[in-house]
Amino acid sequence: MLIVMKPDATPADVARVVRVIGTMGYEARPMPGRQRTTVGLVGNDGRVDSSQVAGLPGVAEVIHVSKPYKQVSREWQAEPTRVALPDGSTVGGREIVVMAGPCSVESEEQILLAARQVKAAGATVLRAGAYKPRSSPYSFQGMGAKGLQLLAQARAETGLLLVTEAMDTQGLETVAEVADIIQIGARSMQNYPLLKECGRLRKPILLKRGLSATIVELLLSAEYILSEGNPNVILCERGIRSFDTATRNLFDLAAIAVVHGLSHLPIIADPSHGTGHRDMVPAMARAAVAAGADGLLIEVHPNPERALSDGAQSMYPEDFVRMMREVVAIADVIGRSVATPVGSTV
Amino acid sequence: MLIVMKPDATPADVARVVRVIGTMGYEARPMPGRQRTTVGLVGNDGRVDSSQVAGLPGVAEVIHVSKPYKQVSREWQAEPTRVALPDGSTVGGREIVVMAGPCSVESEEQILLAARQVKAAGATVLRAGAYKPRSSPYSFQGMGAKGLQLLAQARAETGLLLVTEAMDTQGLETVAEVADIIQIGARSMQNYPLLKECGRLRKPILLKRGLSATIVELLLSAEYILSEGNPNVILCERGIRSFDTATRNLFDLAAIAVVHGLSHLPIIADPSHGTGHRDMVPAMARAAVAAGADGLLIEVHPNPERALSDGAQSMYPEDFVRMMREVVAIADVIGRSVATPVGSTV
Amino acid sequence: MLIVMKPDATPADVARVVRVIGTMGYEARPMPGRQRTTVGLVGNDGRVDSSQVAGLPGVAEVIHVSKPYKQVSREWQAEPTRVALPDGSTVGGREIVVMAGPCSVESEEQILLAARQVKAAGATVLRAGAYKPRSSPYSFQGMGAKGLQLLAQARAETGLLLVTEAMDTQGLETVAEVADIIQIGARSMQNYPLLKECGRLRKPILLKRGLSATIVELLLSAEYILSEGNPNVILCERGIRSFDTATRNLFDLAAIAVVHGLSHLPIIADPSHGTGHRDMVPAMARAAVAAGADGLLIEVHPNPERALSDGAQSMYPEDFVRMMREVVAIADVIGRSVATPVGSTV
Amino acid sequence: MLIVMKPDATPADVARVVRVIGTMGYEARPMPGRQRTTVGLVGNDGRVDSSQVAGLPGVAEVIHVSKPYKQVSREWQAEPTRVALPDGSTVGGREIVVMAGPCSVESEEQILLAARQVKAAGATVLRAGAYKPRSSPYSFQGMGAKGLQLLAQARAETGLLLVTEAMDTQGLETVAEVADIIQIGARSMQNYPLLKECGRLRKPILLKRGLSATIVELLLSAEYILSEGNPNVILCERGIRSFDTATRNLFDLAAIAVVHGLSHLPIIADPSHGTGHRDMVPAMARAAVAAGADGLLIEVHPNPERALSDGAQSMYPEDFVRMMREVVAIADVIGRSVATPVGSTV
Repeated sequence: MLIVMKPDATPADVARVVRVIGTMGYEARPMPGRQRTTVGLVGNDGRVDSSQVAGLPGVAEVIHVSKPYKQVSREWQAEPTRVALPDGSTVGGREIVVMAGPCSVESEEQILLAARQVKAAGATVLRAGAYKPRSSPYSFQGMGAKGLQLLAQARAETGLLLVTEAMDTQGLETVAEVADIIQIGARSMQNYPLLKECGRLRKPILLKRGLSATIVELLLSAEYILSEGNPNVILCERGIRSFDTATRNLFDLAAIAVVHGLSHLPIIADPSHGTGHRDMVPAMARAAVAAGADGLLIEVHPNPERALSDGAQSMYPEDFVRMMREVVAIADVIGRSVATPVGSTV
Repeated sequence: MLIVMKPDATPADVARVVRVIGTMGYEARPMPGRQRTTVGLVGNDGRVDSSQVAGLPGVAEVIHVSKPYKQVSREWQAEPTRVALPDGSTVGGREIVVMAGPCSVESEEQILLAARQVKAAGATVLRAGAYKPRSSPYSFQGMGAKGLQLLAQARAETGLLLVTEAMDTQGLETVAEVADIIQIGARSMQNYPLLKECGRLRKPILLKRGLSATIVELLLSAEYILSEGNPNVILCERGIRSFDTATRNLFDLAAIAVVHGLSHLPIIADPSHGTGHRDMVPAMARAAVAAGADGLLIEVHPNPERALSDGAQSMYPEDFVRMMREVVAIADVIGRSVATPVGSTV
Repeated sequence: MLIVMKPDATPADVARVVRVIGTMGYEARPMPGRQRTTVGLVGNDGRVDSSQVAGLPGVAEVIHVSKPYKQVSREWQAEPTRVALPDGSTVGGREIVVMAGPCSVESEEQILLAARQVKAAGATVLRAGAYKPRSSPYSFQGMGAKGLQLLAQARAETGLLLVTEAMDTQGLETVAEVADIIQIGARSMQNYPLLKECGRLRKPILLKRGLSATIVELLLSAEYILSEGNPNVILCERGIRSFDTATRNLFDLAAIAVVHGLSHLPIIADPSHGTGHRDMVPAMARAAVAAGADGLLIEVHPNPERALSDGAQSMYPEDFVRMMREVVAIADVIGRSVATPVGSTV
Repeated sequence: MLIVMKPDATPADVARVVRVIGTMGYEARPMPGRQRTTVGLVGNDGRVDSSQVAGLPGVAEVIHVSKPYKQVSREWQAEPTRVALPDGSTVGGREIVVMAGPCSVESEEQILLAARQVKAAGATVLRAGAYKPRSSPYSFQGMGAKGLQLLAQARAETGLLLVTEAMDTQGLETVAEVADIIQIGARSMQNYPLLKECGRLRKPILLKRGLSATIVELLLSAEYILSEGNPNVILCERGIRSFDTATRNLFDLAAIAVVHGLSHLPIIADPSHGTGHRDMVPAMARAAVAAGADGLLIEVHPNPERALSDGAQSMYPEDFVRMMREVVAIADVIGRSVATPVGSTV
């Protein structure tokens, strides 16, 4: 339930609405806007008698939200959320943010080289996993704390921001100390205790769509984060499971249009996992930007053949340079631009 | 198996190769190229002893094709097929051909109005069904022969080419008399008797991907047409079945990149069926062109609310005009152009 | 729309209802029952004014059918359809009919041996394809007319009934001359011209579920056959497409319970295509019978290693004997029995 | 890699093999059997030189395991694992263990009544969630610690064992203090930190298949538990995601046959989640037992209409009684029996 206040409603009016909702056993959240304030009611409000609120002074309208999610919906907030990053760029506005790097941190040499390469090509965020969820217990599971340290070193050297994955509530704090954006992976999309912890942070959360999650389920998982108080959620389409083995996953680009219709949250695209083949990444990166993606997440490795994970879908640095040029041109055609590195004169 | 002849091989050399393959119990198909002739061996050649052929005069090389399909593969023909249309444009080259119109022919007034509208917006091919495969026997099944007649009238008036569906071998001839491009719908993708009949025609065939067909199965179905002698096949991605009901189908844009890697055949995209919602069609049309689609198939209806079928995914003519502008701009960025109407000065 | 007549309604009352419906522009189909006659209205009746009919003499009740299908629904006919076979058995009653044999007719020796073997094990219907829909044009496509002739010979020798596939309207008549049950394969489930032709026959039709067909779509395809006048439809679950390659298809045994809830039509199960591995067929055949399947369709080959198609999923005759014993025991537990061969004393 | 020792190999021989493997940088795990000891090598052994081990005294054979998983495979252990439960029954042997109860603990009255009802019908394990993973943050999330306490009370009163879910590593210990079997839900199947913690316990773990997990991925997740030292894993098929909405999930009964072929671990079936409709549960429970399931997990609620979660798929107690009778009969036919309650004279 959303209570839209009149433009001339006073702070006292708003406070009264919040108080009345509290006496009804619900929590109210005032959201001041440019023109007017809206008060949202948190929690299952199926049985709320809205008439108690509708007649209060300053109330313009009571809107019942019809979706299973609320705070992530366009009904709750019409304007797109712009998630601010520490370098001054935002995800969800006019700019398209490109995050690139290897699947995993493998060594100091590897990650520093990768960081320099993706920065040179125009990316502003470095991606790489220190903790890796792997289907087999016998696969490389990431460098852990040492990997985080190397990422921090890469940031210090290049000025790139960092996005890296947290796999559980215990590791979340450690990752949050280093990461600029905390990634919640596809396998963790419905790890609700982890989502709730993310909601208690203020750092941006990159929430990847689960392997067989519907878009509504993705939004509901984001709702877990927002309902705990963290509005800085960036969604990510990375392909879903299907029957055709021609690609690693089925890259669902229509999800971008669907999310933009239902929600105010930004959504970026990961064509590396979306296709699983580096040869298809440039075409799908162009397509994602043309479809309206608010950013890209791309696997680039200095030496894909020797990657410890995801080698087949990691791009060669020189191909990434070419891809960035195409992406910049497509962005321009649709009235957007690719975010540029801090201090860049490009 | 492919037998590549030397550049200086004589017609007699080629004829000898064909003869020897014949004595081995297989059919040989010579394919003269610019530089040299290649001879393909039709049929399952798993047990062929290539040594009998390798030593013949004029033979440069014997190549074993490793895929379940052959004539549709890049190994069989490296250069992209360019399907020539009667208005001088081609599908599969630099141009992007836009086919647009209503789902079904519903009346003279409707189809003529639609034809004028899509032509004005820049389409060169009119799409509309006279015979409609419908899940329910109680749904509108199309106007039939009368519909074909109205389509011919629309062409006569506007100069647009026609693409329309044939549902069975009996109806194929009737449709072929009118259509410039014969559509084989998703439900018929594995109707092999129908595909074989299409192979005996010379008109371009628009082969839509089945609802749960893998890309390899799509190529194998195209192989049925080519193996009967008709090389003029245009593939079409139109979305596959998935678990998420947010869109009517799962629009698999990566299929464009996959097909371009495996085959020399052109592939177009149908974002109307791919998404099922007119609001998502422009974003997905832009994405398809950015991904390299050789054409678009778009449902446009003069009055979508009153459409007898597929109303929800049919665009309003004015939105289609806007979409065409965006598509033209995207095409330009990737070095292609949208095919223009005959006599157009655009 | 269903018009239920009173028990004492006269033939003249029924005729009047039919006439009135005719004047409203619809076709009426009287269905005499044991207690009373019901009149069904064929065609899309969304706009019918039922008040014109409700007040006629002899009319007890007018029921609006809420499903997209009608004649196949439990609402239209509460009692299960029992499809009578020429040997006196029925599909859809207490008996479970077992149809077994090789994927394809390959030779006189092969099909006669297979027929004797499956008969000895207790099957009453011989399955084998003379016309085979194959994904690749280069795969074995069946023996055609010669295969039909060999099937007739096998029936003459063993007394088994025959089920075999028709692929298109041209071939349907030829197949219908020989087959006791005409199979419409998964790839043809939405070949509507073919379904309509099947509806003009009176022979039993075995309609297999399409590879990605929902159960509602399967019922709608059956509706095409019933709406043309042939009520003798046997549905068949044979596995649907999914993401896991551990089995050839995803065998959806719950479909049996779903169909029995929604429709009066019988449904049998094909665990050979449902799993793709002969080792899993006995467990899944037992499960299908336990779930309520009205019959089984099993691939058995005298020599699976040398089968021209579907070798991996074809059972060895001796394993089939063992499977039949288990199936008989499971049937007994749930109050059913396996149909026995004509003249059998088992 | 598996090192099979000779029947007369001495403990010193085994110790030497373990030592040599250790010097090669791998961990060895001796597994004494009835006839002979086998030594397994834990970790990725792709590059191990087996010749160093093959020649050691007492070594009969070195076997390279070809699957991505190891300890869960039939190659590693041919005999089925029998997971012992505290009441003396086992999962994985001749007995079929039935676990039943409501989706969630809702109140003292509800859970005690449910416990008495499922015990009276013949179940030996009570299922009910105290911690509930829910797609929406606004849905009932379970009673938590209070729920665990009520479960313990129900056990004390009825003698039933308890199976209940743990959602994260923090809650695992709390759940483990009360539960006889710890459930890891479908959404947590790839929560690797949680799986590793489960591996450090000795209590039986019920691992449910993820919504879109392949069977190989299910086995790999089980491998995480075994590789940490806990061999007491019970797998559970509960339906996977598909395109047909006729059932809540696609109940993949063939998974039982597939798992029994690939692994020595027991697998039970959950037809309540597998279908989502209580009407289909009895047929699918019978089918699961006929297919070889080692147990059943069934939702039964004293008052399904008033259930706080999963009401539509929860059985009425009286229908559960009838279902148990059918299941007992099917078990008997295939040479198995349903485990009976402690002290039962049934």
